[in-house]
Amino acid sequence: MALIVQKYGGSSVADAASVQRVAARIVATKRAGHDVCVVVSAMGDTTDDLIDLAQQITCDPPQREMDILLTAGERISMSLLAMAIDALGVQARSFTGQQAGVITDAVYGRARIIDVTPSRIAETLDAGQVAIVAGFQGVNTEANDVTTLGRGGSDTTAVALAAALRADVCEIYSDVDGVFTADPRIVPTARKLKQIGYEAVLEMAASGAKVLIPRCVEYARRFDVPVHVRSSFSDLDGTLVTKEDPMEEPIIAGVAHDSSQAKVTLVDVPDVPGKAARIFEVVAGAGVNIDMIVQNVSASGTGRTDVSFTLPAVDGKTATGALEAVRDEVGYSRLQYDDTIGKLSLVGAGMKSHPGVSAKLFHALSDAGINIEMISTSEIRLSVVTGAGDLPAAVRAVHTAFGLDSDQDEAVVYGGTGR
Amino acid sequence: MALIVQKYGGSSVADAASVQRVAARIVATKRAGHDVCVVVSAMGDTTDDLIDLAQQITCDPPQREMDILLTAGERISMSLLAMAIDALGVQARSFTGQQAGVITDAVYGRARIIDVTPSRIAETLDAGQVAIVAGFQGVNTEANDVTTLGRGGSDTTAVALAAALRADVCEIYSDVDGVFTADPRIVPTARKLKQIGYEAVLEMAASGAKVLIPRCVEYARRFDVPVHVRSSFSDLDGTLVTKEDPMEEPIIAGVAHDSSQAKVTLVDVPDVPGKAARIFEVVAGAGVNIDMIVQNVSASGTGRTDVSFTLPAVDGKTATGALEAVRDEVGYSRLQYDDTIGKLSLVGAGMKSHPGVSAKLFHALSDAGINIEMISTSEIRLSVVTGAGDLPAAVRAVHTAFGLDSDQDEAVVYGGTGR
Repeated sequence: MALIVQKYGGSSVADAASVQRVAARIVATKRAGHDVCVVVSAMGDTTDDLIDLAQQITCDPPQREMDILLTAGERISMSLLAMAIDALGVQARSFTGQQAGVITDAVYGRARIIDVTPSRIAETLDAGQVAIVAGFQGVNTEANDVTTLGRGGSDTTAVALAAALRADVCEIYSDVDGVFTADPRIVPTARKLKQIGYEAVLEMAASGAKVLIPRCVEYARRFDVPVHVRSSFSDLDGTLVTKEDPMEEPIIAGVAHDSSQAKVTLVDVPDVPGKAARIFEVVAGAGVNIDMIVQNVSASGTGRTDVSFTLPAVDGKTATGALEAVRDEVGYSRLQYDDTIGKLSLVGAGMKSHPGVSAKLFHALSDAGINIEMISTSEIRLSVVTGAGDLPAAVRAVHTAFGLDSDQDEAVVYGGTGR
Repeated sequence: MALIVQKYGGSSVADAASVQRVAARIVATKRAGHDVCVVVSAMGDTTDDLIDLAQQITCDPPQREMDILLTAGERISMSLLAMAIDALGVQARSFTGQQAGVITDAVYGRARIIDVTPSRIAETLDAGQVAIVAGFQGVNTEANDVTTLGRGGSDTTAVALAAALRADVCEIYSDVDGVFTADPRIVPTARKLKQIGYEAVLEMAASGAKVLIPRCVEYARRFDVPVHVRSSFSDLDGTLVTKEDPMEEPIIAGVAHDSSQAKVTLVDVPDVPGKAARIFEVVAGAGVNIDMIVQNVSASGTGRTDVSFTLPAVDGKTATGALEAVRDEVGYSRLQYDDTIGKLSLVGAGMKSHPGVSAKLFHALSDAGINIEMISTSEIRLSVVTGAGDLPAAVRAVHTAFGLDSDQDEAVVYGGTGR
């Protein structure tokens, strides 16, 4: 018998029939002898509908009121889910974030969890009942006001509760089957991973893979909560996210891609100390996060260099506006902006101990006739920027080159067989 | 400067534009120098929609979960209203029933308010802000669970808060202009009352007038809270409900009617002690509330009598079924059931000190050719049962006979001029 925290996203509880389907799954888990605590998101488009309503009222709603408004969505889904479980003959009780002891700071709209005191949840489980908890919300106990946790908040609620309850596993249900070696819409031969480490899934997420929110993975890593990413629409096992296990974890986890970035190049920047610092100070001052940075060594004699960096394309205007305002001060001759780029990232905890990964990557792209514009690396990630049009072909070429295609031998990528 | 509690019903906040219109009215009250606490119901059909959702899940939802579900509606309307007020340049903060200190017993679905501790509301008003409170909901502090107050709950919330805050007046806004001398759909010449006492409005409500819920009026009477019933769709004064004021209150407040009743007659009941008690014990045991009762003295010699009573027509089957089961025990010969009846009630605190009211009523009906089937009286009410088809004509005849029509001299009914 285990203690299992299950989290169901909005698409899993989109209407009454879906709520009943999820209830049946929960009841099956309970009847298999496990204690079950469920975290649930708002139904389908409820949250977006509430945001629309607020926008009809005012374009600048106070964030405290916005949080009260949005938390209504999970109250609806959690109580309906409790009713559906009860109708199947298993007692269930629903709890708001506040009632579940999810305590946050006072940053409305994107509050951070500072403590979880789930005594009512523990009592409910001890009484043999299923506990349903509203995701995405907590309470700022100083003001006694409700808060929301921001994007990915329900996943974070689930992991935080799993940590506080010392659950055996936190199951995150959505409409995807698990973590894949690449986006199956681009690489039809992409495979679902059986297991992946926290670091690798973090790099995947940061590199554009739509899997778990980094914040939730970081929480799971800190408290060592095993997370099982799986689909509520099938009974298949998904992907287990745990701490690194060299015997189980693939050397290369997968190929992520991101086409939401743009590239800024400042041409002919004087190659003197402090210029780069000033450039990124200006960009940071405009509230823009940058990703990759490339600065070439200046060609001998000219005393000038080019500085390129990538950033979210949505922040393009803000960043270029801020940089144009300091053109004379920085002394660059020209600003180039390109939002037709794509970023490919090869991720895997094993690659740090395996030489030759980067050479293999560059060969694969070269063989496919794809030009590389920028390169950056971390311990367990290797990213390159290509033209946006080349990105799908690049992802497929790299996926194949590293033996990730589903018709290839699994031993090539799993379990320390080395290369 | 006054402290005003305003309550807006669902039809007053049915959509974003209505919320903005109500916000403008609140801001105008605030800018006139008053402190304003607002109680708001769920938007339009929200509550019915949530009930529908629950019914799609199960026909027998646990009441605790039902209460959590339904309280979502007021969270939405209250936060949107706070945003709309904020957008007009006045600070506003919304509060759940729990945050506003509305403490109830644990009877989910129809909880009774046992205390109101509105310290956060008082602080908000002291800070010069508008306080918005979710109607219809409270907290059962023993279990720390939300509860709902049942039908008319938002009106009761408003009056309870007005009492706890020692407000100068509690304004109840809806889509009607106030309390009328009769239903304007039946009596086009019906007049809006300027003022009415708690007792009279209670009798009006109990007699079928769709004005204030009795529970809310009883609360107002107990704590002596003046209630101003008015429309959110106009700036006209409505009707002030206060304790009896012989100088201000009309002798006859109005003519109420109710066509939702039915009549049961047991024919040839043995006229021996205990039979009537047994009959009404059986009806009460079936959970049916009865209204009027008539038992004739038995015609000399027969030793038998007829017993008639009225009850809500929706309970007709339950009551007749229970009575048929005890037919031999009670010894009646026949059970007659008639759901084509109507009840007319003349209500007014002044009538107890004015003789001749009943004679005038019977004359008016007789002149209109309307037969009276049953009669019952209280201190300030006189009710008769007629055929359902006669009810509209009966209401109009009585309304005219007592000088309530709007083209007649107001002095006839207002202010102790006597007759």
